[in-house]
Amino acid sequence: MAHRINHVAIVVEDLDSALAFWRDALGLPLSKTEDNPGEAVQIAFLPLGESEIELLQPTDPESGIGRYLAKRGQGMHHVCVEVDDIEATMARLAAHGVELINETPRVRPEGTRYAFVHPRSASGVLVELYELSRA
Amino acid sequence: MAHRINHVAIVVEDLDSALAFWRDALGLPLSKTEDNPGEAVQIAFLPLGESEIELLQPTDPESGIGRYLAKRGQGMHHVCVEVDDIEATMARLAAHGVELINETPRVRPEGTRYAFVHPRSASGVLVELYELSRA
Repeated sequence: MAHRINHVAIVVEDLDSALAFWRDALGLPLSKTEDNPGEAVQIAFLPLGESEIELLQPTDPESGIGRYLAKRGQGMHHVCVEVDDIEATMARLAAHGVELINETPRVRPEGTRYAFVHPRSASGVLVELYELSRA
Repeated sequence: MAHRINHVAIVVEDLDSALAFWRDALGLPLSKTEDNPGEAVQIAFLPLGESEIELLQPTDPESGIGRYLAKRGQGMHHVCVEVDDIEATMARLAAHGVELINETPRVRPEGTRYAFVHPRSASGVLVELYELSRA
C-alpha cells in the first residue's frame, strides 16, 4: 500500500543558498520552483530517482514553516510516503491508534490527496501521506 | 551522478515502539534488524520503493546517536543519497566549498563506500553519500 518516498522536504533560510549545494554541488536537476502563498513558502523541486528533494523557504516568519525555521533552524521537515489508497491507509493508521493531523484527506489543485501523521505517533517524524491523482 | 535516495535514517528511543508505527500501522515490510556495535545502534531496515526507512536505536547513551537522541529527541537523523562514483562526487563537492565530515570514503564490511557531508554545508541536513559495491 505504501510504495515509495514521494519526497523529503527540507526547510531552508534561502533557496539560492540551498540550491548552491543541492543543485550546483551535488548535481541534482531543478525541475521547477513554485510559490505557494497559501502555506507562505517558495518551493524548489529536485528529482532524485523516483523521489524528490523539496526545499521550502518560508516567505512569512509568522507562518507555520516560518516559525519552525525560527525555532529549529534549517533541516529536514517531513517525509512524504506515497500510498495507493489514502483513505484505507488513514483508517488503518487510526485503527492502530496513530494520531492524524488531518481527519480527512485534503486535496491539492492538481488532484493529489494528502494528510499528515502527527510526529507523536511516528517516531518524532512529521509524515505526509500522498495519493496521487490518477487523472 | 546522484541517482536515488538510498535511505532516510530515523533515530528512535525504542525499535519495538517505532515498528508499531512503521511496520504494523503503515504496513512497511521489515527486511532485517542488525546490531552495529561499532556505532552503538540497533538498526531496523524497512524497504520503501527503491529506498529504505532505517530506524536507529542507540544502545549507548554516550555514543554519537545516543547523545543526538538525548539532545534533539526522536526524528529524522540523515538522508543517504546513492551516487555512481563517490570520489568524483566528493571532489566536486569540495570544489564547491562543501564541508565533508570524512575526507576519504569509508568502507562497510559488505563493500559499500560512504562519507558524510556536514549539515553546515547542506541546509542543516546530515547527508550521507553511498557508492554501493559492484561485487
